[in-house]
Amino acid sequence: MLLPELKLRRDKIRLLMAQQEIDAALIACNVNLIYTYGRVVSGYLYLPLNAPAHLFVKRPNNIEGEHVRPIRKPEQLPDLLKECGLPIPTRLMLEGDELSFTEYKRLAACFPETEVLPCGTSLIRKARSVKTGMEIEMFRRSGMAHAKVYEQIPTLYKPGMTDRQLSIEIERLMRLEGCLGIFRTFGQSMEIFMGSLLAGDNATAPAPYDFALGGEGLDPSLPIGANGTLLKSGQSIMVDMGGNFYGYMGDMSRVFSIGKLPDKAYDAHRVCLDIQEAVAEKAKPGAVCEELYRLAIDMATKAGFADYFMGDAQKARFIGHGIGLEINEMPVLAPRISQELEPGMVFALEPKIVLPGIGPVGIENSWVVTAEGVEKLTLCQEEILVIEG
Amino acid sequence: MLLPELKLRRDKIRLLMAQQEIDAALIACNVNLIYTYGRVVSGYLYLPLNAPAHLFVKRPNNIEGEHVRPIRKPEQLPDLLKECGLPIPTRLMLEGDELSFTEYKRLAACFPETEVLPCGTSLIRKARSVKTGMEIEMFRRSGMAHAKVYEQIPTLYKPGMTDRQLSIEIERLMRLEGCLGIFRTFGQSMEIFMGSLLAGDNATAPAPYDFALGGEGLDPSLPIGANGTLLKSGQSIMVDMGGNFYGYMGDMSRVFSIGKLPDKAYDAHRVCLDIQEAVAEKAKPGAVCEELYRLAIDMATKAGFADYFMGDAQKARFIGHGIGLEINEMPVLAPRISQELEPGMVFALEPKIVLPGIGPVGIENSWVVTAEGVEKLTLCQEEILVIEG
Repeated sequence: MLLPELKLRRDKIRLLMAQQEIDAALIACNVNLIYTYGRVVSGYLYLPLNAPAHLFVKRPNNIEGEHVRPIRKPEQLPDLLKECGLPIPTRLMLEGDELSFTEYKRLAACFPETEVLPCGTSLIRKARSVKTGMEIEMFRRSGMAHAKVYEQIPTLYKPGMTDRQLSIEIERLMRLEGCLGIFRTFGQSMEIFMGSLLAGDNATAPAPYDFALGGEGLDPSLPIGANGTLLKSGQSIMVDMGGNFYGYMGDMSRVFSIGKLPDKAYDAHRVCLDIQEAVAEKAKPGAVCEELYRLAIDMATKAGFADYFMGDAQKARFIGHGIGLEINEMPVLAPRISQELEPGMVFALEPKIVLPGIGPVGIENSWVVTAEGVEKLTLCQEEILVIEG
Repeated sequence: MLLPELKLRRDKIRLLMAQQEIDAALIACNVNLIYTYGRVVSGYLYLPLNAPAHLFVKRPNNIEGEHVRPIRKPEQLPDLLKECGLPIPTRLMLEGDELSFTEYKRLAACFPETEVLPCGTSLIRKARSVKTGMEIEMFRRSGMAHAKVYEQIPTLYKPGMTDRQLSIEIERLMRLEGCLGIFRTFGQSMEIFMGSLLAGDNATAPAPYDFALGGEGLDPSLPIGANGTLLKSGQSIMVDMGGNFYGYMGDMSRVFSIGKLPDKAYDAHRVCLDIQEAVAEKAKPGAVCEELYRLAIDMATKAGFADYFMGDAQKARFIGHGIGLEINEMPVLAPRISQELEPGMVFALEPKIVLPGIGPVGIENSWVVTAEGVEKLTLCQEEILVIEG
């Protein structure tokens, strides 16, 4: 990645550090290394407030550069800093929400005279929540590839298929279009394969994960998504795959059906599209996350779908979430989130309704906040699509 | 999962706790919850030394049982323990290598009078390293499904394919056979999609991850595995997919070629098969990990392949690794690991050689340690297989 782009990102972090009088960051976690160094390495990016960043790398062993040094273990860091002419920091931040307890303690112990702070995760996540022009471009391309796959979904269905089998054919197309497959989440307890396909009542099954909808899954070791449901008429099918084409987790859901659905499904789907339109209309710099959430809840309630909005027996307590290198970034469109939207934020908006006996309906698109409003990045037909009738 | 199986697992952990005078464990990480509760939940399994385990669950909201209570936040734990008639523990272990620093601190702060220890990860990993009969059966079934996919690989190739395209077709077959797809690793910095397919010189590319071989990958955000190499004659192709069919990460590699390879490739492949045979012959209860490693290195060196054994410019420093719910469990067949094999341990043995100008050769199978020796779980032809010629 070009240095000006990396410098831009590092300076966004430095600005937040300066506000808290933090004079260095030690970055060791993959997504933050991608963000600040442009790729995954095994090692540490040391980011001083007032000097160039230095990479101390274990693996791979073929990275060279002016500010790159090999390292075997973190205990070498103080000596390496000295060799590079860098002072031992006074206040150092580590990735406290991402490093394990023992890794954090080991790194902190390398700097016995330093005040070590765990706020690295929150500061870097804050910096990452406002995307650079290049990051938005990655999302734009990702959205196009994602939409190209979804357009082909109706051709993948064969009578007698289960949700799992259809999902596998979609996963294959995603991969052929360039999806890297890996689905990065923030928080050690969030996990999913490439995304989910929910058919019929499986969408009502509550999951342990904090995704918008659940699904029973195929095994108790991964209880989320498709559960082997036979696809049949009268049932809605929601495809919600993660679109990691360039490291950036685009998000997009569409609903399909085999034959026509009961009228109620189209009514509920229309409510979701209306919510999307109303929220997108209000979403602009300065818009408050919880107010956008409230608007969605109010519309769903007024339309008579309060009980089934964002889940059935167990509901998601958000209608949208920031996306980036991970699927769950800031901001979150949820209750008690007073954060305001800013230009460059990218988020998924996913008003969804689960109808017992029919299945999930609704919509999800990825959006970028512009100077005046929001722009949709995942352009693809939004009505419920009949895939065989 | 049946309670006797869960009790067996919990008692393996309890025994290790008793040896360190630990009177309770608080388990919050997914793989350890799968191990001790049989499924992923969002919440905590509280495992006292001398009382039944209790589940305190946030999500999903439909789990019920004698020892199950809902919880919203960990700060409720002391009151919930009291309600369940359980004393506040004196020495409590947490998953120190898996919980984030901030999560660990938050949980520890719930027990201000308790001595909190971070050894939960190492104790539970030790318990997990010796599999139960049911776990071995999961591996056995997983190995059969894995082998069934690999047998079909020659039929997937089409002229003009890249490594990525062939990999995608294999991934699809793995999924159709029941692979859950998700690839669980221990340690936040280890990540990969479903596995790797390495063709030709891409196998020499060093990676940031501590897998046996590297590969450049398709994007700097995931620099591992296939890189878009066109598959052509004279080049070896190694398929190394993770076989997560039932939550258990089986491991298996096979080598393919388009047409015949230079003689050197067959010589090197034979050396790897011989190493596998010799190590498997010595591997039995009481065998020392580092001695098995040394045996492999000595054989590779004697055969003249020291420079290319387990990698080219960057080498893996192991020839095998425990497998289980994660791909990298104990024991590790590596230098300075004096651990002895025990009946019920399951490991992958993967002697591999990378030949510049040709590509990777060698073998990987999953093995279980029996009372007298080891048994192979991944049964499938082991010679280099010509897929078109």
